[in-house]
This record gives sequence, C-alpha cells and structure tokens, in this order.
Amino acid sequence: MHSIGIIGATGLVGSEILKLLCKRNFPMVELRLYSTETTIKKQGFVYDEVRGNLPLELFVYDEAIKHTIVFVAVNNEFSSEWCKKLSDAGVIVIDNSSQFRYDVDVPLVIPEINMQKARGCKLISNPNCTTAIVLMALHPIHKQYKLKRVIISTYQAASGAGAAGLDELKTGMKHIVNGEPVTNHAFVHPLPYNVIPHIDAFTENSYTKEEMKVVWEIKKIIDDCDVKISCTAVRVPVLRSHSASVTIETEREINASDVRELLSRCSGVDVVDNPANNLYPMPLTATNKYNVEVGRIRENYVFGKFGLDLFVSGDQILRGAALNAVIIAEQIVR
Amino acid sequence: MHSIGIIGATGLVGSEILKLLCKRNFPMVELRLYSTETTIKKQGFVYDEVRGNLPLELFVYDEAIKHTIVFVAVNNEFSSEWCKKLSDAGVIVIDNSSQFRYDVDVPLVIPEINMQKARGCKLISNPNCTTAIVLMALHPIHKQYKLKRVIISTYQAASGAGAAGLDELKTGMKHIVNGEPVTNHAFVHPLPYNVIPHIDAFTENSYTKEEMKVVWEIKKIIDDCDVKISCTAVRVPVLRSHSASVTIETEREINASDVRELLSRCSGVDVVDNPANNLYPMPLTATNKYNVEVGRIRENYVFGKFGLDLFVSGDQILRGAALNAVIIAEQIVR
Repeated sequence: MHSIGIIGATGLVGSEILKLLCKRNFPMVELRLYSTETTIKKQGFVYDEVRGNLPLELFVYDEAIKHTIVFVAVNNEFSSEWCKKLSDAGVIVIDNSSQFRYDVDVPLVIPEINMQKARGCKLISNPNCTTAIVLMALHPIHKQYKLKRVIISTYQAASGAGAAGLDELKTGMKHIVNGEPVTNHAFVHPLPYNVIPHIDAFTENSYTKEEMKVVWEIKKIIDDCDVKISCTAVRVPVLRSHSASVTIETEREINASDVRELLSRCSGVDVVDNPANNLYPMPLTATNKYNVEVGRIRENYVFGKFGLDLFVSGDQILRGAALNAVIIAEQIVR
Repeated sequence: MHSIGIIGATGLVGSEILKLLCKRNFPMVELRLYSTETTIKKQGFVYDEVRGNLPLELFVYDEAIKHTIVFVAVNNEFSSEWCKKLSDAGVIVIDNSSQFRYDVDVPLVIPEINMQKARGCKLISNPNCTTAIVLMALHPIHKQYKLKRVIISTYQAASGAGAAGLDELKTGMKHIVNGEPVTNHAFVHPLPYNVIPHIDAFTENSYTKEEMKVVWEIKKIIDDCDVKISCTAVRVPVLRSHSASVTIETEREINASDVRELLSRCSGVDVVDNPANNLYPMPLTATNKYNVEVGRIRENYVFGKFGLDLFVSGDQILRGAALNAVIIAEQIVR
C-alpha cells in the first residue's frame, strides 16, 4: 500500500488522475491533493465518487517527500523547480510537463510501449498527448514493419490548452449562438467555427514546439532516430479528444488487413474501421474511453506497397496524459 | 452583352454566382434564375443589392437554350440529364456537379491554371472545392519544381454539404448551448464539437469519393498522371472555408523562402505566412475572400531538400465553386 500525492489536483489532468486512481482501486494508504492558494480558498476540497470529500492543501516539500509516488500535473516552471528535488529525495515522480522529456537520463514512457525504461527510475516523464495517442497505433506497426516516414496532421481539442481553453470554446460558442461578440485569451485567435494551425510557440525552423514535440518524442519512445517525421498541429473547435490523420511509409511491405488484425490484438487500441456501417475514429466516440480508436486504415497512393493511411482519435486527457501516468504507477507498484 | 441563366440560383453556390455576376459587372443583357417549384412558391424572387428583385422561374429547356451561358449548380442527376442537351444546343454550360469532371472530352477548369482547355468548349466542368483550393497553391509549385508526391489532410466546413449542412451545424450548436439534444441528418454523425473523417460515399479502395475526387482532379488539371497523391478528407465544425494540411515531395530541390516568393506573385493566392505576428491561413480570415490563403510554408523532415509542408484555407463557396465558375465565364466573353 502506497502514499500518493497529486500536485495540480484540480486541473484537467490532475483531476482525471485522481478519478482514475480511485476508480481503478490503486493500492493507497494515503492520498494527498496539492493545489494553489486561490483554488484552496475557493473550493477547499475535491469530491470523489469513491472516496468522498478530499481536502486540498498547499504543496510543501517536506510533506511531499513522504509519498511513495507523486504525480505532477502543473507546468514546466513548477516541474523544473521541484521534480528533481523530490526524486532525489527518493520519491517516484511521474511528471506530465515537457520539462524533462528530452533529457537523456529521464525515461519518456508509454507503458504499453517502453515500460522497461521506467524500471528503477525515480523521475519519469509522461509524453505529449498527441504523441501518446498516435504512438498507440504506430508503435505496433513500427515493431512489425519498421517505420521509415511518418506524416501527421492533427485535429486537437480545445481542452489540450487546459480548463481555460475548454471554457473559452464553450463560452465563445454560447456568445455566437446568442449573437454576442466572441473574445479570446487562451487561444491566439477565436476558436469557435475556426481552425488554428498554431499550437504552442513557433521555433526557428518554422515548426511549432507542439509539432516538434511529436517528432522528438516519437523518436525517443520508439528509440529510432532514423525515422523521418513531419507534423502539422492544428487546433479545432472540439471540446475533448485529439485526432490525427497519419500517412506512413515502412521498410517492409504492408497492407491494411494485416495491420487491422495486428492492431486488434494490441492493448490500449480499439480498431474502429467499418466504413460500411459508418464506423471510424471520432472525438465523439473516443471521449472518456481508455483506448485509442484507430481506423480508416488503407493502402495509400504515395508509397506503393510500403504505404498506409490511417486516422486516430483518442481522449487526450485520459490516454494522452492521466491514464498514461496512472498505468505507469500501477506497473511500478505491481 | 450576354444572356445568362443560373440553374439552382437559390442554393449556396448559385446565390454566390448571382452575387458575383452582379458585383463584378458581368456584361449581361439578360439574367434569369431557375429554381425548384417549392422555392419559387416559398420566396418567388431573389433580392440582389445591385439589381434589386429578380424573379425565380422553373427550368424550361426551350427557354434555357436561348442563353449564351448557363451556370448549373444543382446536383449530378440534373446535370446528367440536361447539361449535354444544353451544350449540344449551343449554350456554354459551366457545371458545378461532379458528373462530367472525369470525361476525357469535358475540360475540368481552374481559370488561373488551365483556361486554355476551355477554349471552344460548350460544356466545362468546375472542380471539387477542395481540389480548387489546394491547387491554387500547388500548381505554381508544380510548374517550377514538379510534384512527385502529395499528401493532403483536409479540414472541411459544414457548408461543403450545402445549406442543409450549414443549418445543421448552426442548429446543433444552438441545441448544445441550450442543453438540448443534437440530431443529425445532413451528416452521418453529429458535427458540433466533433470531427468526421467521412465525406461522400466510401469507394472500394476504402477511400471516400471526396478523397478520390481530389486525387483524380489534381491529376487531370495539372495534366500529370505520374504524381502520387493521397488524401484524407475530414469534416470539421466550421461554417465556411475549407483548409488543408499539405506535405509535398518535388523532383527539383525546393525551399520555403523561394516558394513564398513564387506564390506571392500568383493571382488568386495570398501568402499569409508570418508566424511572428500569428499570421497563417484560417477559415476565419479566408471566408468571403477571393484569394486562397497559403502559409505555414516550411521545409519538411520527410523528403529532405525535396520536401515542403504547407497549410491552405480558402472560401470553398467562392474560390472552390462560384468564383471559379464566374471567372471562367468572364474569360470566355472577354
């Protein structure tokens, strides 16, 4: 039985981690929730269906080091300041920020893919949500056919920008329906009825950080620097669940029906690929699901016998963040 | 001066053709608007800012053959029955349906690209809206660098499915805001806060007709069967303007700044590519514009010195349909 802390427990990801720990009966003797002064003053506690009222408290290092495992779901600044201090003190830290994802000595883990990298480590990074969702489909393909080129265009939900993004889309739609003007702060432009090909800051190569995160993280997780990856990350007016249109080229000959069969045997993946019955991945069906939906699997025209197109949708708060972190913790304590 | 007919004058495309003809001072001695019995009974006439009230009438072949040019914006069934009869009778027919697009003896025309194909022809096909928008950016690149591979993922607006699609998204959003259940008929699944990777019927190769239209039409318009094209067509909750994320490989070495310079000199294209000022193509800015917005132009990672990624947004009712047809007519009578 373990002592668990969640830092950022009232955020979109933190609150899902809390729900998952309770719902999946994580073996806990203690569960403590850390939040900001403002939130503590405002709400004081979090109600959980399984465990009832749970008090919120301010993060205090001397208290946090008493935990077996701490989930950190705040921001890069917090992670940069505290994660290594906690892990150096012997706590297992599972960090959802991008702060340590590219450090060679910090494993970047999707438990279904590279859990062995987490063994014996005190600080473990959770991947970017798009990376996690896309790799659930691509990793089994890579193992069998070896990826050569990957081209990704994303359809990312407003909640990828946290509660502020989610609220801004909902409020904006309400204003439009009521004939009122739409304002924006969480997003650079108004998102209602729009798509915005800009997520996170632009980097020197004209790609955004979000796009480069996908490129770097896929390479690190599948442990293959040779695969060539391009990503275009686009925000769409969807509340929850990210989707991606993916085109691949592989080293070995590939075909759609073999891949459908392969993915249907993979944990964490639902093959939703029955066009005759209008079944394919969509945010509407992927939301609140543990598994990533994969479909529209078809031989493509650009890479002959070595090419496939596919479409994925996955709940980015669950599979892309909270569930990934909780499964890592479950496997560590098992 | 010419006698003009618009068949389907109250539809989304037909009504834009009407507006454009009036606004751009098309040289007309006569303008007649054809619609269905239901619409005629319901509204009787169309009000145009320039020409005032214009009566609606039922299509009668013997009347329609008196026109110099007839625009047809109804559906494949109507086009199949009437377009060839009208063009055989000497009328110049510009058809917006997909009925004749793949006939070897019917030119498929984007005036900025292959207007010479329309010369002397009585029946001319207007391309699919996504094809038209994407090719405004790709054709100049093809001429200079020769396209080898093209990978397209689309973000298509509800109005691509006509007035019914547009209304269904607006009504659905209103219901969501008011906490009421959402229904769907125009789309196979509810579109509000969703993305649907399914436009038009599925074909035997697991691609949709919409996706294959883009493939076939690009090849026909640029007159190059060797270029390899894959498309994933996705409906997004946007009212108007289609966008596309495009990855290309070219025969000749290519770079972003040369392409930005090349496209900035092309008619029908606006280079909107200034990340430092958060400027890139979006439906919000592309709507009601004659030109297609092209941006996010960057060297990609999958095709080395021969690869580019870019993003386009264009008003699919204007540039993707009505404006394309009207410019064809303008160039014919010039």
